[in-house]
Amino acid sequence: MKLNRLFFFILLTLIFEISSSQSRKIINIPNIPGYQTLKCDFHMHTIFSDGTVWPTVRVNEAWEEGLDAIAISDHIEYRPHSKNVTGNHNTSFEIAEPLSKEKNIILIRAAEITRDMPPGHLNALFIRNANLLDREDVNDAIKEAHDQGAFILWNHPGWKVQQPDSTVWWDEHTYLLKNRMLHGIEVYNSNEFYPEALDWALEKKLTMFANTDAHGPIKTGEGHRPMTIVFSKSRTAGGIREALFSKRTISYFGNTLVGESTLLDQIFFASLEYQNTPLKLENEVTKTISIKNNSDIDYELELVQPGVGFDAPTEIKLPSHRIVSFELTGNSDEVNLMKNLNIYYKVKNLVVGVDENLIVTFSIQNI
Amino acid sequence: MKLNRLFFFILLTLIFEISSSQSRKIINIPNIPGYQTLKCDFHMHTIFSDGTVWPTVRVNEAWEEGLDAIAISDHIEYRPHSKNVTGNHNTSFEIAEPLSKEKNIILIRAAEITRDMPPGHLNALFIRNANLLDREDVNDAIKEAHDQGAFILWNHPGWKVQQPDSTVWWDEHTYLLKNRMLHGIEVYNSNEFYPEALDWALEKKLTMFANTDAHGPIKTGEGHRPMTIVFSKSRTAGGIREALFSKRTISYFGNTLVGESTLLDQIFFASLEYQNTPLKLENEVTKTISIKNNSDIDYELELVQPGVGFDAPTEIKLPSHRIVSFELTGNSDEVNLMKNLNIYYKVKNLVVGVDENLIVTFSIQNI
Amino acid sequence: MKLNRLFFFILLTLIFEISSSQSRKIINIPNIPGYQTLKCDFHMHTIFSDGTVWPTVRVNEAWEEGLDAIAISDHIEYRPHSKNVTGNHNTSFEIAEPLSKEKNIILIRAAEITRDMPPGHLNALFIRNANLLDREDVNDAIKEAHDQGAFILWNHPGWKVQQPDSTVWWDEHTYLLKNRMLHGIEVYNSNEFYPEALDWALEKKLTMFANTDAHGPIKTGEGHRPMTIVFSKSRTAGGIREALFSKRTISYFGNTLVGESTLLDQIFFASLEYQNTPLKLENEVTKTISIKNNSDIDYELELVQPGVGFDAPTEIKLPSHRIVSFELTGNSDEVNLMKNLNIYYKVKNLVVGVDENLIVTFSIQNI
Amino acid sequence: MKLNRLFFFILLTLIFEISSSQSRKIINIPNIPGYQTLKCDFHMHTIFSDGTVWPTVRVNEAWEEGLDAIAISDHIEYRPHSKNVTGNHNTSFEIAEPLSKEKNIILIRAAEITRDMPPGHLNALFIRNANLLDREDVNDAIKEAHDQGAFILWNHPGWKVQQPDSTVWWDEHTYLLKNRMLHGIEVYNSNEFYPEALDWALEKKLTMFANTDAHGPIKTGEGHRPMTIVFSKSRTAGGIREALFSKRTISYFGNTLVGESTLLDQIFFASLEYQNTPLKLENEVTKTISIKNNSDIDYELELVQPGVGFDAPTEIKLPSHRIVSFELTGNSDEVNLMKNLNIYYKVKNLVVGVDENLIVTFSIQNI
Repeated sequence: MKLNRLFFFILLTLIFEISSSQSRKIINIPNIPGYQTLKCDFHMHTIFSDGTVWPTVRVNEAWEEGLDAIAISDHIEYRPHSKNVTGNHNTSFEIAEPLSKEKNIILIRAAEITRDMPPGHLNALFIRNANLLDREDVNDAIKEAHDQGAFILWNHPGWKVQQPDSTVWWDEHTYLLKNRMLHGIEVYNSNEFYPEALDWALEKKLTMFANTDAHGPIKTGEGHRPMTIVFSKSRTAGGIREALFSKRTISYFGNTLVGESTLLDQIFFASLEYQNTPLKLENEVTKTISIKNNSDIDYELELVQPGVGFDAPTEIKLPSHRIVSFELTGNSDEVNLMKNLNIYYKVKNLVVGVDENLIVTFSIQNI
Repeated sequence: MKLNRLFFFILLTLIFEISSSQSRKIINIPNIPGYQTLKCDFHMHTIFSDGTVWPTVRVNEAWEEGLDAIAISDHIEYRPHSKNVTGNHNTSFEIAEPLSKEKNIILIRAAEITRDMPPGHLNALFIRNANLLDREDVNDAIKEAHDQGAFILWNHPGWKVQQPDSTVWWDEHTYLLKNRMLHGIEVYNSNEFYPEALDWALEKKLTMFANTDAHGPIKTGEGHRPMTIVFSKSRTAGGIREALFSKRTISYFGNTLVGESTLLDQIFFASLEYQNTPLKLENEVTKTISIKNNSDIDYELELVQPGVGFDAPTEIKLPSHRIVSFELTGNSDEVNLMKNLNIYYKVKNLVVGVDENLIVTFSIQNI
Repeated sequence: MKLNRLFFFILLTLIFEISSSQSRKIINIPNIPGYQTLKCDFHMHTIFSDGTVWPTVRVNEAWEEGLDAIAISDHIEYRPHSKNVTGNHNTSFEIAEPLSKEKNIILIRAAEITRDMPPGHLNALFIRNANLLDREDVNDAIKEAHDQGAFILWNHPGWKVQQPDSTVWWDEHTYLLKNRMLHGIEVYNSNEFYPEALDWALEKKLTMFANTDAHGPIKTGEGHRPMTIVFSKSRTAGGIREALFSKRTISYFGNTLVGESTLLDQIFFASLEYQNTPLKLENEVTKTISIKNNSDIDYELELVQPGVGFDAPTEIKLPSHRIVSFELTGNSDEVNLMKNLNIYYKVKNLVVGVDENLIVTFSIQNI
Repeated sequence: MKLNRLFFFILLTLIFEISSSQSRKIINIPNIPGYQTLKCDFHMHTIFSDGTVWPTVRVNEAWEEGLDAIAISDHIEYRPHSKNVTGNHNTSFEIAEPLSKEKNIILIRAAEITRDMPPGHLNALFIRNANLLDREDVNDAIKEAHDQGAFILWNHPGWKVQQPDSTVWWDEHTYLLKNRMLHGIEVYNSNEFYPEALDWALEKKLTMFANTDAHGPIKTGEGHRPMTIVFSKSRTAGGIREALFSKRTISYFGNTLVGESTLLDQIFFASLEYQNTPLKLENEVTKTISIKNNSDIDYELELVQPGVGFDAPTEIKLPSHRIVSFELTGNSDEVNLMKNLNIYYKVKNLVVGVDENLIVTFSIQNI
């Protein structure tokens, strides 16, 4: 194409080209002390089970969307394309693996044990040979995964096809849990949140997951796919395995993060930047605080307790990649002598329990 | 999920859900007198050649993006996944067909005859049996397509892999053209425009195409894929076939449309809505004209000739789905007696030749 | 600027230019039988009270955003810029009026009577002379407005500055209501919704309003300002006045519409397009329904009652300017003989009372 | 508002609220060694000349858009609102100043000397008293500005109202230049680029500016206003003044930056992050390079000279805030012994002269 003659074509076609170009998004969620924050999706399919994409598509999607790690978890027991697609239960991994190395995406060997409820669908991660999971008795399949060192999670526990009336924990799950053959649970799958799973995860000490369970191409547009945030000692499969068994995950979907309060608190404060020089707030004086949010998360705060000696805003929004300024105003002489001003906010999009949000404390030097 | 407890999850996840939901875009390009304006893509692949998606993905994409018709044109001669994918040259069509009927997407049986240059890659559309195109001699394959009633187009004629130094028309193409075995040409493929192909299309009376040649999932984001606009007597495969043989197409990519001036002129004026009551412009008087653009196309106009007796803007932008107002001002007494005011604009994004844009005439009643 | 040398500058600057260009958005909310659907904002300020823009800015904003009518309602009693800004209470109207005529924006003469609670702030619309409202006694001011034929509404009744603890209806409002000097109420102002105002509007038959109360420039980005939708017999000030006194309004903010069920029901169905040829649904058969949403509103539906003899989706989203397809499946022989299939959905973003959403009925011919 | 009853209103209105909220964008253009990169706009109006906003609006806009410094440059000679607006030539500065301090926006006292061509419109920045510039003779006004220590720039030199046929440099400008009373020139104003001004700036050593010349509210949407990037020793008015007199500016509009090659080269490389460990490229081997673009600028590169001993892509796009990977492939044994691989690209959106783009060199360690 001759640029000097038809210059405008290039530019006018930018809209399509940009979206199709080979570039990688950057997901801005900060590391926390001691750990790398890895963005992962541990549940997805290809044409080697009931998905509609070739395995390499999963790696390309992960690279383009800014993920660190994925597990392709094709169904052991359900392969509807088998008339036209041949191969064994390891084939999708083997096809995807060379590209994952080239793209530096951590690819975790996995499979989905796909049975009626109970126990429903279970993902076995970090297995060595998926073919050996193809057993008639589900317990044999789970035991095989366990013997291969697998991390096992219960997928979409509230899926209406299997739990039409209410989301129930079965004796079989208790059995698996007791025998250390159930380690995690999806609190979010595709576009469904399961509050019961959040309760169980907290109560039974299960690792929480948010996964896509993608079957077709993943379309995120301006947003991001649901993902499991993993706090790992290293950007390796081994690091992720250790982190999963240690329950260091957060479920991230839409603008919501669900997880343990200590992890969410660290993510929250690691996202923010603000000066902490003494504010010198006095009675009837107003001072401004500016907070910069370096993360992709829009934090929404609600005051849970009025400040002692000063007024603070009842609501604060901290939009992603922006600076927000708000005011504190002294309302009694008491404030003049306070060394620190503590302000307590509920973070409406950080969820630590079914009816419970993270409470954060801004502690601002005053004198 | 209990709404009263966890209301916010639903809403906070909207970003992802909306993009993954099953809804169909509407491409707003108007019909023109006597014809339906169909949005088509005649070149794409699946895992049955070197693509990376299952055939049904192509139908779902077409439905979601608002297309009317597609042709899956898997390579006859190149099937790199054959170790794991079995089936013949008709399989991808047969897998996609039931869904295309359910979704009311016109699916055209096609194949890509994939040879070295010359003649390069040719798409045969409206064939009856792709398996019969699997012939050693390329001429036998083309003849077979022709005997099946195919419409044959030359794909990506300027593709650097086959035409590294310059985009050349070969004797073989002359032969095919003379023997009515070459009917169309891609002036745009994927993200490349070929000005030589535009010249040849005009000169040799070939039907113009813009196709995606998609191999992976199609990602259009807020934009649209490159497509071939077909002006058809009916929304049927037969209607499209007649329209292609009659050269009633426009190539649409980014914000650019390339095609014959009569078609572009009709599309342009069918996109716009404005009052044409007498303007009564007089010398030293200013009148306002408002134009509503009902199409998805942002028109960019440049005055090519000053008005006689009045001033008109040198540039006008008519953004998609907006109303634009601009002023005409009489600059001589001559205007007082003019029955019609003619204003001539070049439309910078409507292309009728390599160095040539459509010129449109607004003829506004004055008295 | 020479295009041939520096062509790319034009195009690369499009982002800024488009947003600053003189074009008018189109707000797609359909007319309903007998009425034009006018988009209005009846509460805003200029530098002639405590706003920060010249009156013409309000007209330009209204034109660009696609509104039909505005009222500039500068405070009678509060003019903080008076050291540098001179003029009387009619000046802002007089400055804006010529531009409003040129732009075909209906400009309603108005003023805000600005007092402590009770009665708080009241907008008087359709007055003839704002200067006469400058009276010491608030009742004299209100009576003067009333004598001029004004439509009077209570602004931001739940504004915390005036109603810090709870949103209270005062005796003064009862007095005004009884004496026909209070006709409407803001259920939404700027970015606050007042559920109490919605209760009162329904109970006391007050016209509902959503207004911006803009003081600075209005920034809508991709969205729209809060507005009062008026169903008027004509696109005139008189038509709007009659409609307001007849309570034919809907409050529109974000993606929510609040108003009487008959009006909302008409808007809902006028937004949608779907075939109503007999569906011929039978037991164990699945049929697809496609609905096109021509409006700017994203409708979110929730099934309130299972279909008799067939299954329907529990949730349907009808995104703006898209087509959605969903399935009905016969689940008993009963359906084979039903002449009409009725499906009842709650529309989550159409609000008819504080705890109440519009219920719509799709009645689909079956035989 | 009671959250538990009407939770969804808050969320559904986010679109409007976010755009109207008090948050500050972050413009990501990196600092360069020795200098802070300040984002400035030195040309805008208020109601105190022919603008339509109150002076504080200019400060709020600058804060919200992420600017560091602005100059309000109301016309000395043109005050069309004077019937209703009183005050002298310093009033707009004095009204805006307290807010600028509160918001930490550097506010530069300025005025626009507004005369026929020649010399046209001149902005005097860093003046002490604008009232003294109100002189009958333009040369007296300019001299007064100069005596106050002003930096003087020629505004919109190609404005068609004053330069209808061609953009001309007048004797008067030569006179001013020789007498050190002309220091800068707008190469971009509002939405117009002046190539002649770029030529003159290079030839006559004038500081380059891109300014908005805003009269109404500034609407940037997702983009940014045209601005002058200043490389300053400190974030102070004094720092900016020194930088302007030292010609350390870049004009930034749309996705284009215009300026001296040394400044643009530094900005380009400071925007990018990539590993520079030895690549160890050998003949017939392919290696991947990943580049992260931390800036808001989308860089578009075009290969200007083939690599010696290896192939590099002919075009590379480095979109803002993304990672791009591309490949180098050895094509001769020569590459095996090269210590550094040099690749030369033209950056299509970095402009150093009317027909000239910045050429950048990637020098990648090889052994």
